[in-house]
Amino acid sequence: MMQSDTFQATSAPVADNPAWGPEAFEARLREQGRAYHIHHPFNVMLNSGRATPDQIRGWAANRFYYQIAIPVKDAAVLSNCPDREVRRGWVQRILDHDGFEFEGPGGTVRDEGGIEAWLRLAGAVGLSREEVLDLRHVVPAVRFAVDAYVNFARRAPWQEAVCSSLTELFAPEIHKQRLANWPEHYPWIEPEGLNYFRGRISQARRDVEQGLAITLGYFTTRALQDRALQVLQFKLDILWAMNDAMAQRYGVSP
Amino acid sequence: MMQSDTFQATSAPVADNPAWGPEAFEARLREQGRAYHIHHPFNVMLNSGRATPDQIRGWAANRFYYQIAIPVKDAAVLSNCPDREVRRGWVQRILDHDGFEFEGPGGTVRDEGGIEAWLRLAGAVGLSREEVLDLRHVVPAVRFAVDAYVNFARRAPWQEAVCSSLTELFAPEIHKQRLANWPEHYPWIEPEGLNYFRGRISQARRDVEQGLAITLGYFTTRALQDRALQVLQFKLDILWAMNDAMAQRYGVSP
Repeated sequence: MMQSDTFQATSAPVADNPAWGPEAFEARLREQGRAYHIHHPFNVMLNSGRATPDQIRGWAANRFYYQIAIPVKDAAVLSNCPDREVRRGWVQRILDHDGFEFEGPGGTVRDEGGIEAWLRLAGAVGLSREEVLDLRHVVPAVRFAVDAYVNFARRAPWQEAVCSSLTELFAPEIHKQRLANWPEHYPWIEPEGLNYFRGRISQARRDVEQGLAITLGYFTTRALQDRALQVLQFKLDILWAMNDAMAQRYGVSP
Repeated sequence: MMQSDTFQATSAPVADNPAWGPEAFEARLREQGRAYHIHHPFNVMLNSGRATPDQIRGWAANRFYYQIAIPVKDAAVLSNCPDREVRRGWVQRILDHDGFEFEGPGGTVRDEGGIEAWLRLAGAVGLSREEVLDLRHVVPAVRFAVDAYVNFARRAPWQEAVCSSLTELFAPEIHKQRLANWPEHYPWIEPEGLNYFRGRISQARRDVEQGLAITLGYFTTRALQDRALQVLQFKLDILWAMNDAMAQRYGVSP
């Protein structure tokens, strides 16, 4: 089995442990939400209203690097996946982020996409389009963390890459917090800037359904399930490391 | 620059040659149509009415391996491409082959996709769905040729992978031949089985527009243009090698 990274500690053999049933396994996956970046001091600061405009701008500009990596990561999943039905569902993520414009029987169907919505968010917090697109604010450690995620998706079995996406289990909550708190804490941000979070709540729910069904259906031995938990932890580490890097660059206001 | 394969002959330096202008370069690319598999004895046999049902079935079952590789290859291009505008165009190829079903303002927009259309073609020539899907008829050399194409798209710069797709310059003609000749030569094939070729004529034209624009815009030095011609030749070789392998397995009727 391909590893999530180049060097990995060896684990004790787990062959003796019986597999969890789907409910118990899903519960284990959800338990890992304890390590979701919603609990990171930098994010807690953002969502409790203590962030300065510069800290919010730094966050938006750095997180943009993650946003532009997502469709590339999802294409890597597709490019490793021989299952047409899975691809038909998964390609939606690329359309969600890159946007699309199709001719349908009722006229043009159009979505500007999540990357564009993020650029609007960045504009609403006071960043120019140019300084976001040219990535000048992106901290090296943020870049390394995001690149690690993309490289994992390129090299890992596609089911592991799918499993790594399950941090979306925890995403609707973080988006809801932002929608609930930011207008009050940061009245200087234009409310339309927050549209990205509105869209993601329903998209993340739909994505989780597919990702969870694949994960529960594939990781059916205890050894595989332990591996799935490792993979999810790896992805949680990526989001956490991004926040560490931003905290170090922009500080955490008390 | 990444190579199209593991071992490659060294070429004489070409630094002294001036770059071609876009028209001259496009003409050079189109000239390579001389080596398109439309001229392969096995394909000439198919399109001139001399093929037996077993030869047509062998062709449909083997070519299916190419069909299922195409969206994986196109996802590999996406997964190497940091340009959102290019991705927005290129993802259409995945939708074309895998099919899709979206909710639009005028109702559901649905396309069964090229892979499904190919399965219908295979059914129309007398193959069961099962024997096509399980790839039992696929000749090893066909598999190796197609896999070489997918691996190239995974490893090469995305602009080279785009360039390799330009065999579509020559595809409308081969599809038109089939549509014009097969109903007459092979009346035992249900006409709806040929729908795949109908759809591909307009899709290939649109694909070529994007692929050609990227290729003409990127390969702008003579050294790059020579490389582009090499890359296109590599793809022509893949299609030709598939026909060689089918000719060897199923013979060429005189």
